[in-house]
Amino acid sequence: MLRLKMKTDPLWVKHIAERNIEEILTDHAYCEQKAASTAISLIVQYPEHEELVEKMSDLAQEEMGHFRMVHKQIMKRGYKLGRERKDSYVNELMKFTKVKGKGREETLADKLLFAAMIEARSCERFKVLSENIDDQDLSTFYHKLMISEARHYTMFIKLAKELCPNVDIDSRWEEFLVFEGEVISRYGKKEAIHG
Amino acid sequence: MLRLKMKTDPLWVKHIAERNIEEILTDHAYCEQKAASTAISLIVQYPEHEELVEKMSDLAQEEMGHFRMVHKQIMKRGYKLGRERKDSYVNELMKFTKVKGKGREETLADKLLFAAMIEARSCERFKVLSENIDDQDLSTFYHKLMISEARHYTMFIKLAKELCPNVDIDSRWEEFLVFEGEVISRYGKKEAIHG
Repeated sequence: MLRLKMKTDPLWVKHIAERNIEEILTDHAYCEQKAASTAISLIVQYPEHEELVEKMSDLAQEEMGHFRMVHKQIMKRGYKLGRERKDSYVNELMKFTKVKGKGREETLADKLLFAAMIEARSCERFKVLSENIDDQDLSTFYHKLMISEARHYTMFIKLAKELCPNVDIDSRWEEFLVFEGEVISRYGKKEAIHG
Repeated sequence: MLRLKMKTDPLWVKHIAERNIEEILTDHAYCEQKAASTAISLIVQYPEHEELVEKMSDLAQEEMGHFRMVHKQIMKRGYKLGRERKDSYVNELMKFTKVKGKGREETLADKLLFAAMIEARSCERFKVLSENIDDQDLSTFYHKLMISEARHYTMFIKLAKELCPNVDIDSRWEEFLVFEGEVISRYGKKEAIHG
């Protein structure tokens, strides 16, 4: 359903993620925080779109709720929330959207597809984690979050189509998918959600 | 209870706020958004304080819930959420906290007291609005929000005392109150929550 070009190798869970749960959870917590911050930025940048403002204020609340849940997972294992990590994957995707000379509608479309892309990949990573991790508690946790990410991915694509009627969203999304497939093929080696 | 040095003249409601409800609501919406963003910043800057991280993730959710409520008030009146406004009052307070050479604990104390100060003044402004505005719906709305702001103010002072045991919070708070009293005496003339 996600139409991603590359699948994550389950060995990423077995050899990297599972051996660095504290790192994965810290990185994950900040993914949720950054998703909330991105939703807030969209409100500040596009206050004229009522539906966007409503959906993004709900989303910011939901993402901070997820942050809280990840923080609880950290605390109950006696781990510590570390400092925020650089997310090279997200930075590469962001550069892809920074094309000069775009109009307001094209810029909004790219911001929404950028968010959809991260939700889609996070969804896929949560699925791989949920299916391959030995810790049953975390397996259930990631299964639940996977469902939320899939819902958010759909919402962002739908918003892009509704709010940017002059942009060919299907074609642009295909470009995102191709670019992301190339980017993610160089990842899968680090203890981070998009690592 | 708030110990503020200066009270807002109810004429600010009658002559300014009440005649510019769309402006007041837009400014108010962004006050809630900025409060959420400040809470998120505190998490990113001080992840080592578990209690702070928990309280700030709850607060960010609550403030975005308030943002959503203000946005509903805007929509049901047929108004539009405008662009974010510069908040000179908040900028003046921020400069006061930017003293060079402070340690990590003193910096945290000032960030918490800065947040407490804005909650306290917002609480007072909401009270004056609630008591003087003719629109009964908004009067009730501001009464409810006033109670939340008072609770947040108390939480920030309490957190400062708990997390910064080497800082004399009572003395520093008195300095904030004196400075804020001088600043706010120059305000009360604009259609903004801290205007």
